[in-house]
Amino acid sequence: VKSAKKDYSFSNRGKTLEDELDESNAYYLANGIAVIHKKPVPVQIVKVDYPSRSAAVIREAYFKTPSTTDYNGIYHGHHIDFDAKETGISSSFPLKNIHEHQVEHMRSVTDQGGTAFLIVKFTETERYFIVPFDLVDRAWKRMKEGGRKSIPVAELEEDAVEFHAGFRPRLDYLGAIAKLGIS
Amino acid sequence: VKSAKKDYSFSNRGKTLEDELDESNAYYLANGIAVIHKKPVPVQIVKVDYPSRSAAVIREAYFKTPSTTDYNGIYHGHHIDFDAKETGISSSFPLKNIHEHQVEHMRSVTDQGGTAFLIVKFTETERYFIVPFDLVDRAWKRMKEGGRKSIPVAELEEDAVEFHAGFRPRLDYLGAIAKLGIS
Ligand SMILES: [Mg+2]
Ligand SMILES: [Mg+2]
Repeated sequence: VKSAKKDYSFSNRGKTLEDELDESNAYYLANGIAVIHKKPVPVQIVKVDYPSRSAAVIREAYFKTPSTTDYNGIYHGHHIDFDAKETGISSSFPLKNIHEHQVEHMRSVTDQGGTAFLIVKFTETERYFIVPFDLVDRAWKRMKEGGRKSIPVAELEEDAVEFHAGFRPRLDYLGAIAKLGIS
Repeated sequence: VKSAKKDYSFSNRGKTLEDELDESNAYYLANGIAVIHKKPVPVQIVKVDYPSRSAAVIREAYFKTPSTTDYNGIYHGHHIDFDAKETGISSSFPLKNIHEHQVEHMRSVTDQGGTAFLIVKFTETERYFIVPFDLVDRAWKRMKEGGRKSIPVAELEEDAVEFHAGFRPRLDYLGAIAKLGIS
């Protein structure tokens, strides 16, 4: 039905990639498919008030740089670890969206036998890619050697796994990573 | 050397279990043994100030109840998930230290093939136990059926894995969980 389709598509406008992933992870959990959670935002707490008879209030705190990726968990016995990145640029994924320590974290996870990747959403074109760690690492090294500071979409089309938004789950990214050798 | 031993032991007094685990996880990471991190404390952020030329300041935030355990990661390809609990009581571990949703989280992880457990430290006697999820689950069900609200130390001695503090790493809890069938 056209109107229903329109409504559905409308209802998803403005959703961030993180909202879409939270929804999808809730679906995976409720259906016994995987246990994957977003980590809380790391904050440095400096001052807390303890009013009598009510909850403690944090009155001074600062955002800290995350030392790892934002999501991890377990899927069919496999350790899964990833970060979610949105970009408004349509032709390439700028590497300034990742931090050195995130790359190092993904490397450590890979070395231990886990599956590490990025999920990249191009908000203008509504395209989603799973970017396996080896591609992230290759692009990162290339940049450090003076090469380009982004991964072109053409390279993602070649070596990453594209997937599409659906209904339940909203983003079946675990179905997509089967193509990385996980099932 | 007696005095060195004394100093060493003194330097560890007052360390919380979480400090000891952070130290141990840093050792595991630096030595390529495992990648295990503590999750940030979850807070609900209500108000943030953005002073010009300086970092954003969180001015109102509240502590949220964690929906999962505090630690997870990967060890030799295995997904590891646990919470750390200290108690000043010496004869048993009171189950009021765990939340229902933590038990359910540990169950989901176990169902997916991960290794879930508690690390319990008895601060008075300086005893440490790895309490596998099946023992937690048994005690939890017993409590819900009207039974005792704690796990006696005698039951831990029987069915949990005791381990001892050392030097590097401070707490070799991953060495201890080999006894749970992980290696
Ligand atoms: Mg992120
Ligand atoms: Mg805890």
